[in-house]
Amino acid sequence: MNPSLFQFDGSKACKLKQLPTSISPSAVNKEKLAEKTLKNMQRMALLQEAFYADGREGLIILFQALDAAGKDSTIKNVMTSLNPQGVTVYNFKQPNSEELSHDYLWRVNRCLPRRGEIAIFNRSYYEDVLTVQLHDLYKSYRMAPRLLNQDKQDFFHKRYRQICNYEEYLYENSYRVVKIFLHVSKEKQKERFLERIDQPEKNWKFSQSDLKERARFDEYQQLLGQVITRTASPHSPWYVVPADRKWYTRYLVSCITVQALESCCHEYPTLSVPAKEQLQEYRLQLENEKG
Amino acid sequence: MNPSLFQFDGSKACKLKQLPTSISPSAVNKEKLAEKTLKNMQRMALLQEAFYADGREGLIILFQALDAAGKDSTIKNVMTSLNPQGVTVYNFKQPNSEELSHDYLWRVNRCLPRRGEIAIFNRSYYEDVLTVQLHDLYKSYRMAPRLLNQDKQDFFHKRYRQICNYEEYLYENSYRVVKIFLHVSKEKQKERFLERIDQPEKNWKFSQSDLKERARFDEYQQLLGQVITRTASPHSPWYVVPADRKWYTRYLVSCITVQALESCCHEYPTLSVPAKEQLQEYRLQLENEKG
Repeated sequence: MNPSLFQFDGSKACKLKQLPTSISPSAVNKEKLAEKTLKNMQRMALLQEAFYADGREGLIILFQALDAAGKDSTIKNVMTSLNPQGVTVYNFKQPNSEELSHDYLWRVNRCLPRRGEIAIFNRSYYEDVLTVQLHDLYKSYRMAPRLLNQDKQDFFHKRYRQICNYEEYLYENSYRVVKIFLHVSKEKQKERFLERIDQPEKNWKFSQSDLKERARFDEYQQLLGQVITRTASPHSPWYVVPADRKWYTRYLVSCITVQALESCCHEYPTLSVPAKEQLQEYRLQLENEKG
Repeated sequence: MNPSLFQFDGSKACKLKQLPTSISPSAVNKEKLAEKTLKNMQRMALLQEAFYADGREGLIILFQALDAAGKDSTIKNVMTSLNPQGVTVYNFKQPNSEELSHDYLWRVNRCLPRRGEIAIFNRSYYEDVLTVQLHDLYKSYRMAPRLLNQDKQDFFHKRYRQICNYEEYLYENSYRVVKIFLHVSKEKQKERFLERIDQPEKNWKFSQSDLKERARFDEYQQLLGQVITRTASPHSPWYVVPADRKWYTRYLVSCITVQALESCCHEYPTLSVPAKEQLQEYRLQLENEKG
């Protein structure tokens, strides 16, 4: 499977309503795909080891989605093969007061990985053009009037530009940003919410506000299309991944991750001839150790 | 004194060689200027208090200069009137290994002030286009070949653009960046170096590498002119401040700081009518307290 089928790199508009949230089970062999997912995960682990040793590039994989699209379970099921020494997951929840008193990328910058390491963002700075835009949250921020008094559209179009510049900066400083949108249908969301209500061990995942957000499902989807269109680029593409069938989602996310790691530098550092000779001297020293 | 006489906002090129490093003592009354400096410092303290209470904007004042131009002593003598709760000075020395394994703005972002607070940068991310450029330091960085294999000029012109974008982002997120270059002459640098060699309590300020850097004084100056020209903007201007006479430097820096604080939001938050009434209720509660 070529993940670029699901890729947006800025060359075309993203209209979410027209994009699949699922795949017909008859179109693929579910078991075979699950096997391929496992193979991809093994490949991810191998690639990560070389990528870590190489240390010339850093990788950020970010997930955005509406509720119950499967962010948590995708991360749990696909990223588990990675060595935790070298990968960190960051959850971007509602900003706290310390975060709100800074620029919105401040808390993101604190989570940037070292080169050779992977950061997984569960939600991200894209919330600052999604939830913040849809709910007008920025209006209550303590910011200069020159910013808050401007037209809302100007405010957020500037944020789109800021985000594009930010990702370009990261790319030009030896990072790669891969952006995955888990595309769930409104029906499937309802089904998963009902599960969360009916199964006691899933109750903690449900909150009243989920229904409030769901009431604006279509608005969110329209805005998401705009955000994806405006912020997709060849160096930091978006992937719109069908999210109604988890085994399919996981398979695609594993393909995207393999491709991302393959595109990063992942060569084990090699030694110069004198350094190799030096190694042999160290070998002798160890072998001749007394006692 | 209008600090904008020394200001570069991107509308004209900066040719350091043609700019004054001093002022004729006969042109001004030194004692009067020292008095005015003190008055400015008092005004800074008053403005800072309101700016802190207001909390809608953050301020970054950064200093760049060649060695012995007086960065430390200017900060010590001018910024001392500020309440340390609300101002922090950050020294950007040679990056450590943790910093080098990240993008070059990573360590800067960790030093961004809360809105309502002031950060003073003693040196800054401008080192990443100055020392790093002049000494080709970037060539030893662990970065992807797509970056290191490009033309040197491309590499640094991209950095100029990245820095402009960064400062624009900060401005659009309720920060102000004021950039001060302390412009010292080669003769005055020599004189101050000799003082550092001759006066035991100043010895610690001198190091062998200072002479190595001095040997490239003219190159630095030319590069600095280019950097200032390329990164000056109306929202994040550079000030080229004559630095051969410390009392004059201090006076100008105090003027620039007053102007910067004045341009930031600095209104004490006011209460709504119901909130004021509420305050009176609290007063009663306090007055009627038992025991």
